[in-house]
Amino acid sequence: MQQLKFRKVFNEFVVEGEKIVKEIIDSKYRVSTLFAFEEWINENQQSLTLADILYEKVSPKELARISSLKSPNKVLAVVRIPGISAEIQFDNLVLVLDDIQDPGNLGTIIRTADWFGVQDIVCSNDCVDLYNPKVLQSTMGSFTRVNVFYHDLIRFLKERVPADVVVYGSFLDGKNIYKTDLKKSGLIIIGNESKGISEEVANVVHKRILVPAIVQNGSSNTESLNASVATGIILNEFTRNL
Amino acid sequence: MQQLKFRKVFNEFVVEGEKIVKEIIDSKYRVSTLFAFEEWINENQQSLTLADILYEKVSPKELARISSLKSPNKVLAVVRIPGISAEIQFDNLVLVLDDIQDPGNLGTIIRTADWFGVQDIVCSNDCVDLYNPKVLQSTMGSFTRVNVFYHDLIRFLKERVPADVVVYGSFLDGKNIYKTDLKKSGLIIIGNESKGISEEVANVVHKRILVPAIVQNGSSNTESLNASVATGIILNEFTRNL
Repeated sequence: MQQLKFRKVFNEFVVEGEKIVKEIIDSKYRVSTLFAFEEWINENQQSLTLADILYEKVSPKELARISSLKSPNKVLAVVRIPGISAEIQFDNLVLVLDDIQDPGNLGTIIRTADWFGVQDIVCSNDCVDLYNPKVLQSTMGSFTRVNVFYHDLIRFLKERVPADVVVYGSFLDGKNIYKTDLKKSGLIIIGNESKGISEEVANVVHKRILVPAIVQNGSSNTESLNASVATGIILNEFTRNL
Repeated sequence: MQQLKFRKVFNEFVVEGEKIVKEIIDSKYRVSTLFAFEEWINENQQSLTLADILYEKVSPKELARISSLKSPNKVLAVVRIPGISAEIQFDNLVLVLDDIQDPGNLGTIIRTADWFGVQDIVCSNDCVDLYNPKVLQSTMGSFTRVNVFYHDLIRFLKERVPADVVVYGSFLDGKNIYKTDLKKSGLIIIGNESKGISEEVANVVHKRILVPAIVQNGSSNTESLNASVATGIILNEFTRNL
C-alpha cells in the first residue's frame, strides 16, 4: 500500500535487481535516481554515462534500508511513470483485461502478449497496478515493450473503439474457439480470475469464445483455465495461421 | 521447510480453507484429522459422517495456532499422502516436468493438464513438492484428479517408457509446433523456468518443438513464454483436432 501511494503521488515507481534495471536503462523509461553498490556502478559506468543517469553509491546497509526485498540485490532504480502518448492500434489484436487481480497473472499476460506481437493492453481501472513489483517481475522485461493503458472499460468500449472492430470475449459458456472465425485484428476481453467478464462488459461482446476442455470418462474435470494460460491459448489460436 | 519435513516424516500434508477441504473430502484422499469451527462442523455434519472423518472442534485462537495462514479460514485438514498405485497410461498424452521450481507454475500446469484430459504427470525429483500449499492452491482442485509421480527422469525415460512412445520436448530452438506431426499420445517434456530442459534429458527427446513468437518490426521481443502458458499452448496444439 505504501508503494502504491508512492506511485500515485510522485508518479514514480521502483525496480530492483540487475536484470530489470538494465532493461529499464535500455528502454524508453527515464530513471530519476539510481542507488547501487560501488562495484555495480564501476561495472556499468559506461551505460550510466551514455543514458545520462543520476546515481548514488550506497552501502549494503543503506540499500537494505530503502529496499522492499528481503535480500536486496546490488541496485535499485526510481523510475518516472511515462505518460503514454501512443495511440491504440485497432488494426492489430488488442487485449482488454476486466478486473485481473493477481499480479503474477497480469505480468504473465503482458509477457505473453509481447510474445504474440500484441502491442496494446487495456486494463479496467480495478485491475492490479502495472507497477506492482510482482507484476513487473512476472513480465520478464516485457513491460518495456507493451503499452498498458488503464480505462473505465465501459466508456472505453462504447466511446473509443471504432464500430468495425470485432470484440471477442472469453466465456465458460462461449463457442468453441476452434470453430470460430478469428480475424487478424480485434479486441479480446479476458475476465476476472473467479468472476469472469462482468455483465456490463459482456453486453458489448460480439463473439463469445471458449477453449474447450477435453472430457474424460464423462467427468467434467476442472472448472476453468488460469487467466494467463487461457490468454496464451487464445492468442495462439488468433495468430497460428499468420 | 518445517512443512516439507512434516510431509516427508509423517507422510501427511495439510490443506486449509473451505473449498479445498471439500474437494479433499469428495476425492480419493483420506483425511487423518480435521480441525474446524463448530459452525463449519454443524454445516457439514452429513458429509463428515458419510466419509467417516475424525474431527475436532477448535476456537479461532486454536486454529490460528496450528494454521500457516495469516487469516485462518474455518477449517484445516491433515491428509494422508496416498501411495499412487495407478500405472502411467502411455497411450494418452503424458506430461514430464524437468525441474519446475515455481509453486504457481506446477499448480497451474496440473490444472491445465486436467483441462486437456492429461491424467499423468511425471516430475523430476528436483521439482517443487506437490503438497506445497501454494502448489495445491494453484491447481484449483485438479490435484485430486491428476496423478503426479516423482522420478529420476533419466532412469524413468530410459527404463520405464516403452520404445514406441514419441518423446516431445519444448525448446527455444525447437521446430515450429504448427508444422510438427503431433500424435494423440506421447511424452511432452517441459523444462525449468530459466534453464529449460537439462542436457541429459534433452538427449532422450525425439522431437524438439517450439511455439513460435510473432516478430514485430524486426525486434525479437520477449525471450520466452512462462512455463505454464507454454504448457497450455502445447497441450492445446496436441488436442485441438481430437
